Amino acid sequence: MKIPPVKGTRDFYPADMAIRNFIVDGWKAVSLRNGFEEYDGPIFEYLKMFQMKSGDEIVEQLFSLQDRGGRDLAIRPEITPTLARMVNQQINSLPKPIKWFSVPRLCRAERPQKGRFREFFQWNIDIIGEYGNIADAEIIFTTLDYLREVGLTPEDIVVKISSRKLLAVFLGSLGITEEKLESIYAVLDKKDRLPAETFEKVLGEQVSDKKTVNKILDFMSIDSMPQLEKLIRIESDEFAAYQEIKSVLSILDKMGVGGFCKYEPGIVRGLAYYTGVVFEVHAVGSQLRAICGGGRYDNLLRDFGGPLLPATGMGMGDCVLEILLKEKGLLSKGILEKELDYFVILTDKIFVMKLYEVAARIRSEGFSAYFSYKSAGLSKQLKEASIRNAKNCVIIGDEINKNKLVVKDMKTGDQQDVDYDEFFAQLESKSK
Amino acid sequence: MKIPPVKGTRDFYPADMAIRNFIVDGWKAVSLRNGFEEYDGPIFEYLKMFQMKSGDEIVEQLFSLQDRGGRDLAIRPEITPTLARMVNQQINSLPKPIKWFSVPRLCRAERPQKGRFREFFQWNIDIIGEYGNIADAEIIFTTLDYLREVGLTPEDIVVKISSRKLLAVFLGSLGITEEKLESIYAVLDKKDRLPAETFEKVLGEQVSDKKTVNKILDFMSIDSMPQLEKLIRIESDEFAAYQEIKSVLSILDKMGVGGFCKYEPGIVRGLAYYTGVVFEVHAVGSQLRAICGGGRYDNLLRDFGGPLLPATGMGMGDCVLEILLKEKGLLSKGILEKELDYFVILTDKIFVMKLYEVAARIRSEGFSAYFSYKSAGLSKQLKEASIRNAKNCVIIGDEINKNKLVVKDMKTGDQQDVDYDEFFAQLESKSK
Repeated sequence: MKIPPVKGTRDFYPADMAIRNFIVDGWKAVSLRNGFEEYDGPIFEYLKMFQMKSGDEIVEQLFSLQDRGGRDLAIRPEITPTLARMVNQQINSLPKPIKWFSVPRLCRAERPQKGRFREFFQWNIDIIGEYGNIADAEIIFTTLDYLREVGLTPEDIVVKISSRKLLAVFLGSLGITEEKLESIYAVLDKKDRLPAETFEKVLGEQVSDKKTVNKILDFMSIDSMPQLEKLIRIESDEFAAYQEIKSVLSILDKMGVGGFCKYEPGIVRGLAYYTGVVFEVHAVGSQLRAICGGGRYDNLLRDFGGPLLPATGMGMGDCVLEILLKEKGLLSKGILEKELDYFVILTDKIFVMKLYEVAARIRSEGFSAYFSYKSAGLSKQLKEASIRNAKNCVIIGDEINKNKLVVKDMKTGDQQDVDYDEFFAQLESKSK
Repeated sequence: MKIPPVKGTRDFYPADMAIRNFIVDGWKAVSLRNGFEEYDGPIFEYLKMFQMKSGDEIVEQLFSLQDRGGRDLAIRPEITPTLARMVNQQINSLPKPIKWFSVPRLCRAERPQKGRFREFFQWNIDIIGEYGNIADAEIIFTTLDYLREVGLTPEDIVVKISSRKLLAVFLGSLGITEEKLESIYAVLDKKDRLPAETFEKVLGEQVSDKKTVNKILDFMSIDSMPQLEKLIRIESDEFAAYQEIKSVLSILDKMGVGGFCKYEPGIVRGLAYYTGVVFEVHAVGSQLRAICGGGRYDNLLRDFGGPLLPATGMGMGDCVLEILLKEKGLLSKGILEKELDYFVILTDKIFVMKLYEVAARIRSEGFSAYFSYKSAGLSKQLKEASIRNAKNCVIIGDEINKNKLVVKDMKTGDQQDVDYDEFFAQLESKSK
């Protein structure tokens, strides 16, 4: 009986796994060098935890289950609620600021499509306990530090930065009440994905006054800081929020990634919990959805039963990123392939136990070793060694009777007899 | 509103995550050096896939869920069925032998207890397509290569090796029919966990004849190869199975791990699909359950709708292993702590933008850098640097006006002025 995989999930055969590891290992390395510490939570949590604060889209896409005690659980669709729960649990003993990262496996019951699977991996970095814009800038810098590391340039990607606070103050100045904000955010978030006419129509359903609609449309069409600057009066309510964006941008400039960044009011973010600077990274001139997004969420920990503690973070999935890296030719075979240190070769079956001994000793010294189970000829074994990307071959032949191994450098083709004990003494010294 | 974590799950705060990473990264490194390639499957599969071939215990502990189409799914409780599915799917294009490993997250709805959580990580290594005992030996060697690497010795652990085939032939010779084998295996597997009397009683419920019970008890009390050797006649049906164990043991001896291994008929393994050599690793003189186990399962791929293809493998969870490593003092702080390359320090707030620039550039060159968000005094910053395990500090003071940084070696305490551009030129050359 043959059973298929579930639709929308991925099997990671070794070639696919090499790509996933390339992505995830890169996330980890860049997080660590930017001073983030790794954490993780369980794959499932109480269902209600995700229903509390996630976006409607996410709540609709929960994979829920019950444990044997009948408790309602769900596979995590995002890790931020878990982060809030974990931080709140140890709020008094954790030194601030908390700079944490995670690379969780997440599941959403979405309809599978390009760049969307029902199971994916997501890089999360978060800084908790810091109101200063340096924290927002560090989040964006770390994101770019990774994207630049894998080879993306300002010709490939752009960071679009905006502010929920600025938007809230601006909408407030038009007489829009706080209760209306949430639903208007949801509309504005769709601006780039809707034709202009449809967008205007949908916005009109939320805001009845035609003049107000036009003012919002004008605001949403600003796409540079100088343009924004003209609009903001120093004594206005918008000024503080404007200053925040400006401060983040100037720090990013100092950090050497200013060329990637621009102000873009169309960035609203779907999730309800953002409160300040928000951003998304997009592929330039591409129909791909955002590579990642994030922003400030100063109320979330309090909403999860903890104290009021500022926070800012970013989430990047592996699916859209992988498509982009492939499109840009940044997942070449050379990047993904691993080298094998030693392929151990047999010239005669009588030496087979020696082969096992040699391979095992090489591995025990911390080097990789492979050998064929078949008793094939020398040339066939050499061919397999080269397929397996071996740097060296160790050939066990008659020389072993004089306690010697033949070591062949696969790049130069050089071959020499090496004393058995000398060979392992050298390996041991290299492994230290 | 405060929501707790689900019972039986674990939160991995950075200190816990360091242990998990130490374990999982070790599994990966040892797998790779032993010639295994990494794969992974989805976190959930069709429920029926796990009901087909897993042990009864596992089937009872499934976390099942439905997708929106009403399909019955389950979170994976083990990865072997996924492995069988994936191999069968690409059976014709995969070169044999297939040597694969995985470190999946698995869930079982068990009652949490010492060394058992409802969510855990498991190292899996499998060799598919090889009947020869070298494959069984490689599985056991790779297991020991890891356990030895983390510091365990034959004084700490023992590999108990047995054979399902030998047991089957022996029980057959006593007149026990094939249909009965499964339920007798389940009883024999419990031998070490039951008091002698209870074991005898439970066995008596399966085997009514008192003489036969005694013969089984005698066979189960053999605990060395010489003892077993006395029992096996060369022309007997048991001989082939006996030879297999002997061959595996002699290869392991050549591989340098013979001192860890012994024959032990009490090793039966709970899972239904084993067909040949089976083994478990136990902590010496400890009440802990097995650290890991595995064996040959030559029929599983066929049972999953594929061809008849031999296979042998091993699974090791992280929970019991972690307890043992802690007991043996093998998870010292020194092993788990990461060093920070540079802590960047500020002598005056006016240099803050320079601080951001320097930290960002160090990170971009591939080195880790940290700085404090607070404008604390020099000594406080130096203290934080040492708490964060910094190898060096970069101090930004008045020297920056002469384009110089002060670099302090935290081990020796040496401190020297370094030209700004020279500092980064040196970093760049080191990072290549």
